[in-house]
Amino acid sequence: MANSKFEYVKNFEQPDNLLPNTWIVVRIDGRGFTKFSNKYGFEKPNDRRALDLMNAAARAVMSELPEITIAYGISDEYSFVFHKSCALFERRSNKLVTTIVSTFTAYYIHLWSTYFPDTPLSPPLPSFDGRAVCYPSVQNLRDYMSWRQVDCHINNLYNTTFWALIQQGDMGALEAEEMLKGTYAAHKNEILFSRFSINYNNEPEIYKKGSVVFRDYELVDPGTHNAATEADNLAEPVLHSKNQTENDKKHRAKARIVIEHLDIIKDEFWDRRPWLLSNKPGKVPKET
Amino acid sequence: MANSKFEYVKNFEQPDNLLPNTWIVVRIDGRGFTKFSNKYGFEKPNDRRALDLMNAAARAVMSELPEITIAYGISDEYSFVFHKSCALFERRSNKLVTTIVSTFTAYYIHLWSTYFPDTPLSPPLPSFDGRAVCYPSVQNLRDYMSWRQVDCHINNLYNTTFWALIQQGDMGALEAEEMLKGTYAAHKNEILFSRFSINYNNEPEIYKKGSVVFRDYELVDPGTHNAATEADNLAEPVLHSKNQTENDKKHRAKARIVIEHLDIIKDEFWDRRPWLLSNKPGKVPKET
Amino acid sequence: MANSKFEYVKNFEQPDNLLPNTWIVVRIDGRGFTKFSNKYGFEKPNDRRALDLMNAAARAVMSELPEITIAYGISDEYSFVFHKSCALFERRSNKLVTTIVSTFTAYYIHLWSTYFPDTPLSPPLPSFDGRAVCYPSVQNLRDYMSWRQVDCHINNLYNTTFWALIQQGDMGALEAEEMLKGTYAAHKNEILFSRFSINYNNEPEIYKKGSVVFRDYELVDPGTHNAATEADNLAEPVLHSKNQTENDKKHRAKARIVIEHLDIIKDEFWDRRPWLLSNKPGKVPKET
Amino acid sequence: MANSKFEYVKNFEQPDNLLPNTWIVVRIDGRGFTKFSNKYGFEKPNDRRALDLMNAAARAVMSELPEITIAYGISDEYSFVFHKSCALFERRSNKLVTTIVSTFTAYYIHLWSTYFPDTPLSPPLPSFDGRAVCYPSVQNLRDYMSWRQVDCHINNLYNTTFWALIQQGDMGALEAEEMLKGTYAAHKNEILFSRFSINYNNEPEIYKKGSVVFRDYELVDPGTHNAATEADNLAEPVLHSKNQTENDKKHRAKARIVIEHLDIIKDEFWDRRPWLLSNKPGKVPKET
Repeated sequence: MANSKFEYVKNFEQPDNLLPNTWIVVRIDGRGFTKFSNKYGFEKPNDRRALDLMNAAARAVMSELPEITIAYGISDEYSFVFHKSCALFERRSNKLVTTIVSTFTAYYIHLWSTYFPDTPLSPPLPSFDGRAVCYPSVQNLRDYMSWRQVDCHINNLYNTTFWALIQQGDMGALEAEEMLKGTYAAHKNEILFSRFSINYNNEPEIYKKGSVVFRDYELVDPGTHNAATEADNLAEPVLHSKNQTENDKKHRAKARIVIEHLDIIKDEFWDRRPWLLSNKPGKVPKET
Repeated sequence: MANSKFEYVKNFEQPDNLLPNTWIVVRIDGRGFTKFSNKYGFEKPNDRRALDLMNAAARAVMSELPEITIAYGISDEYSFVFHKSCALFERRSNKLVTTIVSTFTAYYIHLWSTYFPDTPLSPPLPSFDGRAVCYPSVQNLRDYMSWRQVDCHINNLYNTTFWALIQQGDMGALEAEEMLKGTYAAHKNEILFSRFSINYNNEPEIYKKGSVVFRDYELVDPGTHNAATEADNLAEPVLHSKNQTENDKKHRAKARIVIEHLDIIKDEFWDRRPWLLSNKPGKVPKET
Repeated sequence: MANSKFEYVKNFEQPDNLLPNTWIVVRIDGRGFTKFSNKYGFEKPNDRRALDLMNAAARAVMSELPEITIAYGISDEYSFVFHKSCALFERRSNKLVTTIVSTFTAYYIHLWSTYFPDTPLSPPLPSFDGRAVCYPSVQNLRDYMSWRQVDCHINNLYNTTFWALIQQGDMGALEAEEMLKGTYAAHKNEILFSRFSINYNNEPEIYKKGSVVFRDYELVDPGTHNAATEADNLAEPVLHSKNQTENDKKHRAKARIVIEHLDIIKDEFWDRRPWLLSNKPGKVPKET
Repeated sequence: MANSKFEYVKNFEQPDNLLPNTWIVVRIDGRGFTKFSNKYGFEKPNDRRALDLMNAAARAVMSELPEITIAYGISDEYSFVFHKSCALFERRSNKLVTTIVSTFTAYYIHLWSTYFPDTPLSPPLPSFDGRAVCYPSVQNLRDYMSWRQVDCHINNLYNTTFWALIQQGDMGALEAEEMLKGTYAAHKNEILFSRFSINYNNEPEIYKKGSVVFRDYELVDPGTHNAATEADNLAEPVLHSKNQTENDKKHRAKARIVIEHLDIIKDEFWDRRPWLLSNKPGKVPKET
């Protein structure tokens, strides 16, 4: 029985390969996580278990997809970055996005009981949506990352103050909202300190900075590499010899994937980790 | 602290709304399921537990997304159909695809232990990729569904014969492959019957037909409705009154989602279930 | 000298094939025609020479591209329709749009002196932009055509009244604009009739209805064909035998391309000319 | 009379804005120019009048669209480059491509009689198709330009030899083709020189190098500017003050548009004309 009569329907599928030589950022977001976090009693303003679960899922995604060079997460969202020379799945947008969304979801569900041992999941289950965006230059990519980290800071300062007013200041949600309307960062810092003796600077880094996930190699001295300019000058996918590619893969597999809470807006983070922009594995640190 | 300096990066996100007035099919596929099925010892040619798990995940997706009108699954793939008038997520491709992929994955992982109680999951976890395709006419949509069901039949007849040769005929894989090369359906039926006394027609319907998932209403008499022509004539999203929409929603929520193994190529399946093409809920059957 | 070092840049070109089995409408618009029409002293509210030039260019486009089934023009815009089964240029959007825009422009410039013999063109020259839009069903296509013809009527009634107030009523532009603000069709008809003894119904059809361009065959009796339903049911490009295609081509080449000013909103226009929706050449009328 | 009933059809138009911060190249090609050039008796291998007409049309396009920074033409094709910061027409692909194609065609037809005074145009008229491609980095853009110039050289050397064999060597087309099959540049140079005493290096630059069109400012010393790196570092459209933009416009309007036949593969061309990559008008040369 031939299938040819119906096979013409395959022609309706449209190609979705992303523009070559651009950085691909896949961002995923929790669907309806306000409701979800209430159902499972997430602590406010930040639930450490929930963040650790997000980070564990992100680390697993990076481990299964070594083509991802760096990831950054805040709250219920995570951004995964593919190097501009990446050719995974021929850069097909749907393949890249759904593979990340599905892998992330799988680990989020699978690892849930590790981080929430006393509250088993029940339907409706948590899920994530996602999208891919192309950024032509290193500056665009870094501005994207900076945008997310600034958002993390803005939201966390707001939420920390908001929930302090409610939890320690006995305010209602509307009252707290009203009070914070139009305030600047300085005002919120002042409220936290004067009313609740909270020094915002001493809050945990994971809440203030979010989480950045990457492969760990030996830091280099600032000024010794120029990975950003090299990356911008890179015109097409570098075609290594087969051996070189295999070597790189083994190198990457050996590298430890770390989760840090660092400033990714300033140059230093990128200058000292040239492998993030060059896509060439760094030097594996000595045993520690 | 304003975020305006970096916010320009939002402009790089490109719209992906699918063409209005077309049927949207989101098909998802298991990633690397050959390896995965070996790891967990899936039975060959079909593992009933694995299919039941796929079906349970598909039913959960339909339950969470009432905008899906029908779904069809074979092996490690599932197709979900949105009516041509569907306006969910403004028809943004990424939102539709990732929501389905993520929800499906979540239930697949969550329900795994129900169907495989003795073999707990371990990394790397199963995952799925997906894509959305638009079909302009009812005929295109039905041809797509027929294409998948013909594929189901072709693959299942081949696999049933192939594994009979191996499991009962003591052949090696290469030998069996060689023997089946270029054979027609009649040959395979003959091999099954003469060598192994297997009448392919008596094989379970779920293996021969795949699984079709939909909301169950009272069947209508063929010829009394013309949902296909009505659907093709429909030019734009029908704007019901708010009340009507709410009523439809309640109606749908009440309807039982069933999983059947029927012929979806012939007209009868569609003629007797006009709600699948009209998107108007049918009559809820009396208690049985 | 091999060109291979630079040829990778070809990979940046992205496919733009339009969704199969949908009607393709290419609409072109004059760029900056208000200024242009002032420069060449176009008569207001309608310049017959300018419309005749537009129509002559459209006829030439249809003659060079027999795959176009119908075209409709008003003012400085023209819409060209490709049948849903059309496979010209593999349905690549850029090829279809630029070929029409370029051919139209070529004839507009070339024929200018025929219609404006006393006012030679000088830079900046007139030009047109264009875009392709897909419509899945016959109803969508007809609604598109109706939309343009309703626009023609609305604009022409307004412009006829506006310019009567100025040219015969000695009003200034602002005064006329103010007077017409918020008026319904009936008011404008009334103004034309009572003030200027103009019966709008007696205005030339070309101004009231626009221009529709198509191949002329023998009209059929309404109700004898059902081209719309047949077209909607058509699922994929019909694959004729080579001979059939050649025959169709010759048939089309023989057919006279006519320019009419008819109502294309009502069913009659389409019912009596089934070849417009079926894409099958009709019967060539006897010599007249 | 309201138009609302049909206006929903506007929703079928899909956005086509090109990725920000990328160089946009619009390339246009003559449609069926082999046939066209035979019809009008173009000289082989190069017809100077035809090239001059192409160049005149390209210059007119650049004059009407000051956002174009550079153009490059060979044979019946022309590439127009918009700076990566260009925001013309909100970077809508169709608007950019059709405007260029239409304007180019208009001038080609209009100026025809200047360059071919003795052979008036007759239907079918010459026309052009076009497409837009995005290039993320300066290197990609320059590689695109180099690709075209290398093509020019390869084609011209081949055509020069091919037509010498035919016109001066009395060969037939097939025989000449056969003779040149698989030959390298050196062979062709040798054939030209030994058989026909033609030194290919002495052929006119316009044939060997093609034509590059740009605004003329004072050349700068190589090494004093780094426009390429600056351009790559540029992350978003530069928002000048309104005054600055107006000044730039006036500056550009004053600049002479020149047509040269230079090597655009080597660095020197770009190093000495930093305004091509920086998009900042250079210094207008003193009267000469």
